[in-house]
Amino acid sequence: MQIKKATFVIAIILALVVGAGGSYAYTSYAGKEESGSRSASDDAGSLSEVENAYELIKDNALAKPDAQQLQEGAIQGMLETLDDPYSSFLDEESSTQLNQQLESSFEGIGAEVSMVDKQVTIVAPIKDSPAEEAGLRPNDQVLEVDGDSLQGLDLQEAVNKIRGEKGTTVTLSVKRPGVSEELNIDVTRDEIPVETVYADTKEVDGKTAGVLEITSFSESTAKEFKTALDKLEKDGIDGLIIDVRGNPGGILTTVEDILKNFVPRDKPYLQIEDKNGEKQEFFTKLDEKKEYPVNVLIDEGSASASEILAGAMNQAGGYELIGKTTFGKGTVQQTVPLQNDSMLKLTLYKWLTPNGDWIHEKGIKPTVEVDQPEYFYSSPIQLDEKETLKFNDNNDKIKNLQIMLEGLGYEPSRKDGYLNEKTETAVKQFQQDNDLKATGEVDQETADLLQTKIIEQVRNGKHDNQMDKALQELFRS
Amino acid sequence: MQIKKATFVIAIILALVVGAGGSYAYTSYAGKEESGSRSASDDAGSLSEVENAYELIKDNALAKPDAQQLQEGAIQGMLETLDDPYSSFLDEESSTQLNQQLESSFEGIGAEVSMVDKQVTIVAPIKDSPAEEAGLRPNDQVLEVDGDSLQGLDLQEAVNKIRGEKGTTVTLSVKRPGVSEELNIDVTRDEIPVETVYADTKEVDGKTAGVLEITSFSESTAKEFKTALDKLEKDGIDGLIIDVRGNPGGILTTVEDILKNFVPRDKPYLQIEDKNGEKQEFFTKLDEKKEYPVNVLIDEGSASASEILAGAMNQAGGYELIGKTTFGKGTVQQTVPLQNDSMLKLTLYKWLTPNGDWIHEKGIKPTVEVDQPEYFYSSPIQLDEKETLKFNDNNDKIKNLQIMLEGLGYEPSRKDGYLNEKTETAVKQFQQDNDLKATGEVDQETADLLQTKIIEQVRNGKHDNQMDKALQELFRS
Repeated sequence: MQIKKATFVIAIILALVVGAGGSYAYTSYAGKEESGSRSASDDAGSLSEVENAYELIKDNALAKPDAQQLQEGAIQGMLETLDDPYSSFLDEESSTQLNQQLESSFEGIGAEVSMVDKQVTIVAPIKDSPAEEAGLRPNDQVLEVDGDSLQGLDLQEAVNKIRGEKGTTVTLSVKRPGVSEELNIDVTRDEIPVETVYADTKEVDGKTAGVLEITSFSESTAKEFKTALDKLEKDGIDGLIIDVRGNPGGILTTVEDILKNFVPRDKPYLQIEDKNGEKQEFFTKLDEKKEYPVNVLIDEGSASASEILAGAMNQAGGYELIGKTTFGKGTVQQTVPLQNDSMLKLTLYKWLTPNGDWIHEKGIKPTVEVDQPEYFYSSPIQLDEKETLKFNDNNDKIKNLQIMLEGLGYEPSRKDGYLNEKTETAVKQFQQDNDLKATGEVDQETADLLQTKIIEQVRNGKHDNQMDKALQELFRS
Repeated sequence: MQIKKATFVIAIILALVVGAGGSYAYTSYAGKEESGSRSASDDAGSLSEVENAYELIKDNALAKPDAQQLQEGAIQGMLETLDDPYSSFLDEESSTQLNQQLESSFEGIGAEVSMVDKQVTIVAPIKDSPAEEAGLRPNDQVLEVDGDSLQGLDLQEAVNKIRGEKGTTVTLSVKRPGVSEELNIDVTRDEIPVETVYADTKEVDGKTAGVLEITSFSESTAKEFKTALDKLEKDGIDGLIIDVRGNPGGILTTVEDILKNFVPRDKPYLQIEDKNGEKQEFFTKLDEKKEYPVNVLIDEGSASASEILAGAMNQAGGYELIGKTTFGKGTVQQTVPLQNDSMLKLTLYKWLTPNGDWIHEKGIKPTVEVDQPEYFYSSPIQLDEKETLKFNDNNDKIKNLQIMLEGLGYEPSRKDGYLNEKTETAVKQFQQDNDLKATGEVDQETADLLQTKIIEQVRNGKHDNQMDKALQELFRS
């Protein structure tokens, strides 16, 4: 299957919610900077201690640091004291990359990553990206890239290692929660185009449901969304499903523009709280809800702007949320240009749901919770050299094998990691069906083919329980 | 056994070699600071980018950082870019502690620690300190203190957690190289007095060897040393052993003053190389070597100033070095006071041996290599709840058990981790000899007593192979 679409945010930032346009009633930074950065209002906190240290280090340290290095170190050091993984310093190269991503395509693996507990962590692979195809999953921790440890690198440096020219392959060593062994996952990089809304329709009992999947909230997403929605409505739909599963977020104004189609004026769709605890409510100008039913699909990869959407749709619009509890990012960042084309990404606000909930590190619960089939969460089986999984073995890899076999319609008879006769028979059957020698032993070739088949099946959507439930709920009344 | 002595450097710094007096021909900092820290000679490297970021963060970040926090973060961030574990920022509290340590006593566990690969690592426990008594060893990594992770703390913060009032107990979770399980080691804190030279004599074949052990190079150490040496010489010695095993270093001028007693004027005892590669040689005014033989005891805990001593004694003085390869710290730091009573400790120079070798991360090899008995390097056995080591078990803890039993004079018959009948018999024998029930199974009580006996035996010096060899070599000619 070809990669048919993808999103703008790659492997760099959780600038998921960036009020880039400064569209709120908060001070714009440019003004502040111009008015003199060390104004008379300053308290004792002048930078003289830092200046002394800077001069001492620059002029004397054996390591002979250059001025730029020290200054970037100082900025990074200040940001580290905030204990906030979403605030970061982007040097010239990173800033350029970010700006490119906000509007066009790029070459990489197509995964959103964040720094969690000092580990580069996958927030979500982008839909149909090489990262998704290779089986990367939310919360995977990337330990090494092509054998080089990421230890000690910041997020940007790590991302620079992961990215690269289309067609090249990168090997990620990944620690997956619940899996004891490190996984080595090869990903072939590709161009990740910026296209963020995908429209589809589904028929249920003679009724037509429109499905609008939003893969991220990019600059053009609200316009794409409106165009697709208008077309669906013109063609005639009886209900609408908005799918933000795996959507890591994006620009705040974008999600606001989308919400203006659905959330009526009488309740705030969002509250923004500043550092002093002052809250501001935001309202649409919409008179009435859509006349057709709408619900929203969410999962553990729905973060930030996706969570704003989910919170508003449910609490201010009264729409149902189907799926799993979301990621839990409740803060708003703004990027601010510094000198030398570098940028500061800084957490400025909390955002609250219409009811005033701060969902940070909690996420938003679905109103109708639905798990995907167990095999959606299976891991690729990675065998040691010459290792096979055979009769009477008992380990975690076999547990995973059994889940995969079951997902593919075979009958391993148990899923506890013990490879009994029935599991052996299921392995033989799978091997036979796929022109492999029917040994009943799983070697790496069999394991890889299992993974391929699982991915194919996940992607064909036949067992998408969450989507099925969303359709069922949509026309339930 | 009582704690009878200890040294000044505790659990903070490797300010092992601090040219504190500014006794070299290098610029003094005070002068520079006063002449204006941002002088006209500056290149493009002004701090304006840092200032912008500072103002932005201070005025806007959701986390509401205070000025002091940001400035310290900035300084720490600059130091981190140097990639040098020996450069660090000491805040007011840490500076005060450091100054106290340089001259008086303090309350703690008595171990020298450093930050290695982002882990708080024991460089050496101080002689007869609670740390040594509890069995802490060079290269132990301290992961937790009283159950709190040290992850993310800097060295100073970690040390502040480890220290505390005399008589209180602190539990360190320790990762020891070569030991797969984490060890939990209880240390009862004590007052660690500042006394750094211990004199003794040993008789060998009718000859008298003076032994001067130097536990660190503190402010008063050279004077202490000279007094002790004069007394030994007055009483009459036929040779001298200088023991710097486990000595983590100290003040550069101190080791220089000691070397002036032994190294003749015709070869430099030390070279100092600045960041531009310019070298300066340092000479004593001594006409002749001592008329009696001298050698130096070193081991993997001999660091920094101890290595300067060893290098000079061997290469410029022609004295033998007995023991093991030293730690390998070849840089010189200077502390510089900043505002608010904080300090910067900054690596300024390399030091080179008389022959011009830079021993950083290599150490100094002994001329006569001697290992201590295997049991000197054994680890305390830590059992899981209800775990015992019994007949037919096979694991690393048993390997350690067998080494300890052998060290105590029992005969476990193997040291590969398999608990056979002979090892069981040895355990029974040990239990009998120590009024424990002779079960042949090792429970925590038996394990703890083994450890106590091992420590007693290490401390009584009966099997000190290195000392024995040093005495033998001393009078060999």
